[in-house]
Amino acid sequence: MSHTVAEIAHALGAEFAGDGDLSVARAAEPGQASPTDIALAVNPKFADQIAQGSARAAILWQGADWQSMGLSAAIFVVHGRFAMADLTSHMDRGPEFEPGIHASTHIAQDAQIGAGASIGPFVSIASGVKIGAGARIGPQVTIGRDTEVGANALLHAGVTIAHDVTIGDNFIAQSGAVIGSDGFSFVPPEGLDIEATRRSLGSAHDVWPGGPAKWRRVHSIGGVEIGSDVEIGANTTIDRGTIRATRIGRGTKLDNLVHIAHNVEIAEDSLLCAGVSIAGSTKVGNRCVLGGQVGVNDNITVGDDVIAAGATKIYTNAASGRVLMGSPATKMQTQIETYKALRRLPRLFTQVAELKKAVSKLTNSD
Amino acid sequence: MSHTVAEIAHALGAEFAGDGDLSVARAAEPGQASPTDIALAVNPKFADQIAQGSARAAILWQGADWQSMGLSAAIFVVHGRFAMADLTSHMDRGPEFEPGIHASTHIAQDAQIGAGASIGPFVSIASGVKIGAGARIGPQVTIGRDTEVGANALLHAGVTIAHDVTIGDNFIAQSGAVIGSDGFSFVPPEGLDIEATRRSLGSAHDVWPGGPAKWRRVHSIGGVEIGSDVEIGANTTIDRGTIRATRIGRGTKLDNLVHIAHNVEIAEDSLLCAGVSIAGSTKVGNRCVLGGQVGVNDNITVGDDVIAAGATKIYTNAASGRVLMGSPATKMQTQIETYKALRRLPRLFTQVAELKKAVSKLTNSD
Amino acid sequence: MSHTVAEIAHALGAEFAGDGDLSVARAAEPGQASPTDIALAVNPKFADQIAQGSARAAILWQGADWQSMGLSAAIFVVHGRFAMADLTSHMDRGPEFEPGIHASTHIAQDAQIGAGASIGPFVSIASGVKIGAGARIGPQVTIGRDTEVGANALLHAGVTIAHDVTIGDNFIAQSGAVIGSDGFSFVPPEGLDIEATRRSLGSAHDVWPGGPAKWRRVHSIGGVEIGSDVEIGANTTIDRGTIRATRIGRGTKLDNLVHIAHNVEIAEDSLLCAGVSIAGSTKVGNRCVLGGQVGVNDNITVGDDVIAAGATKIYTNAASGRVLMGSPATKMQTQIETYKALRRLPRLFTQVAELKKAVSKLTNSD
Repeated sequence: MSHTVAEIAHALGAEFAGDGDLSVARAAEPGQASPTDIALAVNPKFADQIAQGSARAAILWQGADWQSMGLSAAIFVVHGRFAMADLTSHMDRGPEFEPGIHASTHIAQDAQIGAGASIGPFVSIASGVKIGAGARIGPQVTIGRDTEVGANALLHAGVTIAHDVTIGDNFIAQSGAVIGSDGFSFVPPEGLDIEATRRSLGSAHDVWPGGPAKWRRVHSIGGVEIGSDVEIGANTTIDRGTIRATRIGRGTKLDNLVHIAHNVEIAEDSLLCAGVSIAGSTKVGNRCVLGGQVGVNDNITVGDDVIAAGATKIYTNAASGRVLMGSPATKMQTQIETYKALRRLPRLFTQVAELKKAVSKLTNSD
Repeated sequence: MSHTVAEIAHALGAEFAGDGDLSVARAAEPGQASPTDIALAVNPKFADQIAQGSARAAILWQGADWQSMGLSAAIFVVHGRFAMADLTSHMDRGPEFEPGIHASTHIAQDAQIGAGASIGPFVSIASGVKIGAGARIGPQVTIGRDTEVGANALLHAGVTIAHDVTIGDNFIAQSGAVIGSDGFSFVPPEGLDIEATRRSLGSAHDVWPGGPAKWRRVHSIGGVEIGSDVEIGANTTIDRGTIRATRIGRGTKLDNLVHIAHNVEIAEDSLLCAGVSIAGSTKVGNRCVLGGQVGVNDNITVGDDVIAAGATKIYTNAASGRVLMGSPATKMQTQIETYKALRRLPRLFTQVAELKKAVSKLTNSD
Repeated sequence: MSHTVAEIAHALGAEFAGDGDLSVARAAEPGQASPTDIALAVNPKFADQIAQGSARAAILWQGADWQSMGLSAAIFVVHGRFAMADLTSHMDRGPEFEPGIHASTHIAQDAQIGAGASIGPFVSIASGVKIGAGARIGPQVTIGRDTEVGANALLHAGVTIAHDVTIGDNFIAQSGAVIGSDGFSFVPPEGLDIEATRRSLGSAHDVWPGGPAKWRRVHSIGGVEIGSDVEIGANTTIDRGTIRATRIGRGTKLDNLVHIAHNVEIAEDSLLCAGVSIAGSTKVGNRCVLGGQVGVNDNITVGDDVIAAGATKIYTNAASGRVLMGSPATKMQTQIETYKALRRLPRLFTQVAELKKAVSKLTNSD
């Protein structure tokens, strides 16, 4: 697919100079750009790289001297990252699933599929399902009974959505995502109190009755409720709730391999990076950004606007606006001071040993 | 689906009072309950919430004054969490896969499928497979050659079970679970000893030969053996063994995104929460409870009844009955003392600095 | 399938003694070996276990006195782990997918499938795909448009490869692997600078505009490029690049549940164990070995030959040849000294308290 410079400038809401009819096929980093690419160099620090590549067009910063760079055309942007968002959105061909509903699909007779749907091979849609207009559903997708998905859904190949799930508009799910798996909830046999052991820090031997355990399964009869403009990453799992639904609020995005346990409630516009795990019944606020591999304990509350560095482990409630790091999580500043102190520890041990000697000498000389 | 109060009381083995014929459709938390819900308030602390909702029936604690709460019927339970297990089990409609074997399935002629099976669209069952009676198998499930699954299996949509796997009765696997993937085992080229480097804490440069590595693949010719009453979470992976089978004992439950490496043996009735990773050839005992994101090193032994807090990293053998926390794992009490000490470290540095000054003064004044 | 001792010896490039025509069905650990198994005892420490089993043939160390062990035949190997690789490779029957292309597959007319392919039920192959000779493709695999896979690929059941992905020869992907999912990249609204907050360690409240966030999605128009001899584990995810491709170099192996973010470049012959997560745009060098659950920050460089112990969290650039441990990662030796110091901390507090008393006494007595 080719794009003219003028078209791209229009998509970016930006001015251009030079040959607006120049046609490019793809975007590229300036050093790797071929004559059919448009080079991305939104910052003067990339200026030198343009000469290394052979682009004839580029997306540049405001006021860039494009002609001295040997370009035939240039687009000028104010905010480089917004330009990246708009450019990639404009150029993304996506999976380009075949239009229409493939003959091999199994769709229940009472399922309602909105207008303009593209549904790929081997898709299974159960009874009572409702899917909004404009859905793009890749091969091997399964949607369980009575589940509802809003308009403009993009379900990549191999997504599984279980029964009794409700999802808003503009939903995107990457391959392998599982929405609505059963929660992990088991009641120990009578006389066994794991929670008490955790609290008392005692030995597990004190509370296990010794005989064979027989965990009683708590079933998950709540569903999952997902707001509009939510995105779910590849192989991410969201468990259904026990009684009430597990909830993901409008605008929240989950990366790959994220785990959301039963009864969890994530509010709006939060970002959860790859490998984040939120344990059962925990609440996470609005606009939180949790880095990769962050873990959040069960039954706690993380306030609004919390930022957690990668691999932070949050065991207790986190106040709104906190910037957290470490395991157990503390304010990032505290954690960094701890790291510094740890590095100075060997010296401290030496100093104390020297002090002991000096004091002992003083004491003896008294 | 509706349930009368008397039916629910019977399922819970509990007494009820009031209108046993009152019909409810769902369970709900007391504050959110509508007139067609049964409210769950097994503890007096939830009493106030009943008035906030509009339930006409509730599950209450023993001796609760149900009539003063404006209810038409009430069920009285002794053990709230057992009641939760029994109630959700009674009310769970599950995925309700269509009965019978779907026409689109590909089932090898010599595969043996027990009576009463429900097998969904696009299921692939290879040669030599045996599946017990009462199986519920969702869409897109694959079962590899010569694998055996016991009675009453529930395989949610998109489960993959490879070849040469043996599984007991009452097996539940959530969507995306993979059982019997190849182990991750590679032999480094001659002259390269990663293990020696780990032991010596030396530089990897000392042992790498510098030339291009060529890992030799160790294939996994052992299978996987899973006992009865085992449950496997969504997108969890269990690798097959190298020579002997990887084993998961009776009654053990694995949450989502858990990784079980080749040759691992988990004994009976253990719970592994989401994101737990057990490295190759490690043994985990009976009735262990490993919190979310726990990691267990390869070739070690975790005894019976070990409890590990979320994100604990277990590098060395763990004695039976231990309650562990931290990375590297220690007894939980030790870890908590360490955290306290770390918080007091800045003060310690100040104190030592002051002592140095004081001692220096004393020494000089001598 | 049965194998004679002579055949196995030939596969191992090893000498044998005794009855070369003796036929065995499987390999086994010596203590569990039946008369139809060949026992593996490549180290004298396993000698005693042979008597506990009932093997008639064994793979032994050089110079082992096989006749005194009551064996009818023995193979003698120099390097036990190489023997394990060769033996398991020889005996591995693999998934044994049915030959040919199954009638239920959906393969685009313009897709090019190399000679000798085995393609299982419910496989979906989109337009423009090219697959090399000798492919073994299990059930439920999906391959997106314009993707190319080299010769001798083994794609286990349920693998998903998206569009515009390029993969070399001898590729192995375990079930549930997802290659080419969209990157996780969102631009915050104007006036909001998460990065600045991270740098300043300030409060997130300082930078959030307070109003509802509206993340702008950066699309992933780069693909994924994977070299030859690469292996990808079960339920592992590899995101496509933003502009340039995400890259996995020749000979690199990824275990289960690994996450590779957009724009990441892994060089050659590296091993990433289960649960490793590499954040966006990071580079990892040649011959690295990253233990289970290792996390690597975004936009950093990990040099060649780096070894990281399980659960190491790498926040900053790591020099070539480093052996790392801990969170944040340090040289392994430093980390071990820190652990020792932490264990001695309580004693240090006591010593400082005693010193304070002693100094106070000295000061007052002056």
